[in-house]
Amino acid sequence: MAESLEYKLLYWPQIPGRGEFIRLCFEATGVPYTEENSVPELQALLLNKDDEGIGAPHFAVPILGVRDSNTKTTGGIEHYISQTPAILSFLAPRLGLLGDANKLQGFERDVAVAQINQLTLTALDLNNETHDTHHPISVSSYYEDQKEEAKQRAADFRANRLPKFLQVFELALGPNEVGLDRMKEGALRMWGSKTTVADLTVFQVIDGLQFALPKCMQKLKDSGKYKHVFRLHKEIRAELKGYLNSDRRKPYSDGVFRHYPELDDE
Amino acid sequence: MAESLEYKLLYWPQIPGRGEFIRLCFEATGVPYTEENSVPELQALLLNKDDEGIGAPHFAVPILGVRDSNTKTTGGIEHYISQTPAILSFLAPRLGLLGDANKLQGFERDVAVAQINQLTLTALDLNNETHDTHHPISVSSYYEDQKEEAKQRAADFRANRLPKFLQVFELALGPNEVGLDRMKEGALRMWGSKTTVADLTVFQVIDGLQFALPKCMQKLKDSGKYKHVFRLHKEIRAELKGYLNSDRRKPYSDGVFRHYPELDDE
Repeated sequence: MAESLEYKLLYWPQIPGRGEFIRLCFEATGVPYTEENSVPELQALLLNKDDEGIGAPHFAVPILGVRDSNTKTTGGIEHYISQTPAILSFLAPRLGLLGDANKLQGFERDVAVAQINQLTLTALDLNNETHDTHHPISVSSYYEDQKEEAKQRAADFRANRLPKFLQVFELALGPNEVGLDRMKEGALRMWGSKTTVADLTVFQVIDGLQFALPKCMQKLKDSGKYKHVFRLHKEIRAELKGYLNSDRRKPYSDGVFRHYPELDDE
Repeated sequence: MAESLEYKLLYWPQIPGRGEFIRLCFEATGVPYTEENSVPELQALLLNKDDEGIGAPHFAVPILGVRDSNTKTTGGIEHYISQTPAILSFLAPRLGLLGDANKLQGFERDVAVAQINQLTLTALDLNNETHDTHHPISVSSYYEDQKEEAKQRAADFRANRLPKFLQVFELALGPNEVGLDRMKEGALRMWGSKTTVADLTVFQVIDGLQFALPKCMQKLKDSGKYKHVFRLHKEIRAELKGYLNSDRRKPYSDGVFRHYPELDDE
């Protein structure tokens, strides 16, 4: 019998944060999911052993709960998975987010899946480095207590790191011989011509950076060096319009993406 | 026809670094691989488009080159994959590094693979946070130019972050009801009773930390709180003895794991 999965996203309330990368997969594909945002419920799962199966303890949220309603017909969640890239790798084939890789088989498909994973992981690295611009010394201390170090790290991030990441995304999207072939088939995407989990992840990081560092991002956009990256952002924003205009889309505030003018360009 | 893959690891010369996580997979399983350590060759691949296939551009090494000698009988590498977790996910099923997950099928197997991936990613996060103890402000600047900030970040890492990571590994390994069942079958491993890619990754991070922060790690070992983590390190070290004593094992120096006494406990 084919699996029939029920999904629950467990993440902090109020901020989009790393939970948003998972949420976008469901919202982009229309696959139903529920959420658990109760802080005590989440804390009970963190740093605790899942004693019901072999399982694996969770360092941090997001956590994905899954249940196969064909095999587990009563009770709650059957399994929990954490670590954003592990959740995305589990979901991508189930939610139809592997794009043109689905045309391939065996070894060739596995290579394509690995390359989509590679691009997704690179976007998540950019997300992590964005976080560290405002918390370069300690995640458990206040921003105000590491503000001077944050200014230094943000300056390096804007000058060196962010352009290097955007260059990789631009190369993945850009018009070379392969890209021109893809243009004939339709949209340019991070891998092939159809939206994958890598596109959703890059969209979310670019979107958050435009909130956090609006002046820097405008300069990078105006440079013309990353025009396919900004076009991808615009196209995915259009694909996700219904969700982004709903109250399910949480506003940026004090999560990964924070707007501190002193960390932005002048 | 079953695939017949040739593997090439592309990584910087001289340091174990992130390449070591890939290298250990081959060394632990005896699967043949070659290496490319020429800096100009690596730089030609980084931040460049692979024009031969759709491919995906690479932000950083390690990069894995693969070739199926059944379908590509002449010429060099067929495909390149980068991002350590993407490479490990590609290799684990091919190299027999999914342990007891191989006893499962379908949905249950995919959950197990995701949980092994989750634990591997958590160990790689610890690797990344170790790196940032000596480079909290800028990866492209010298340690000496961010030494004061490094002392602050390292103090937070030793007090808060490192114990939190070790707690997750200890929970994964430790003797609860599930653990006791596993004890009967043999060794305690991160997921089940057989060595997976998660065990190799945790081994390498613990090993590197013992070089970088020997006093801090000795205190944590003496605390008795993480005895299964240190036992895993010892057991995997024994499994890898032949490799670790060979000249293929590069010494720690100025990579991720660096020994600066001023960043260690007193």
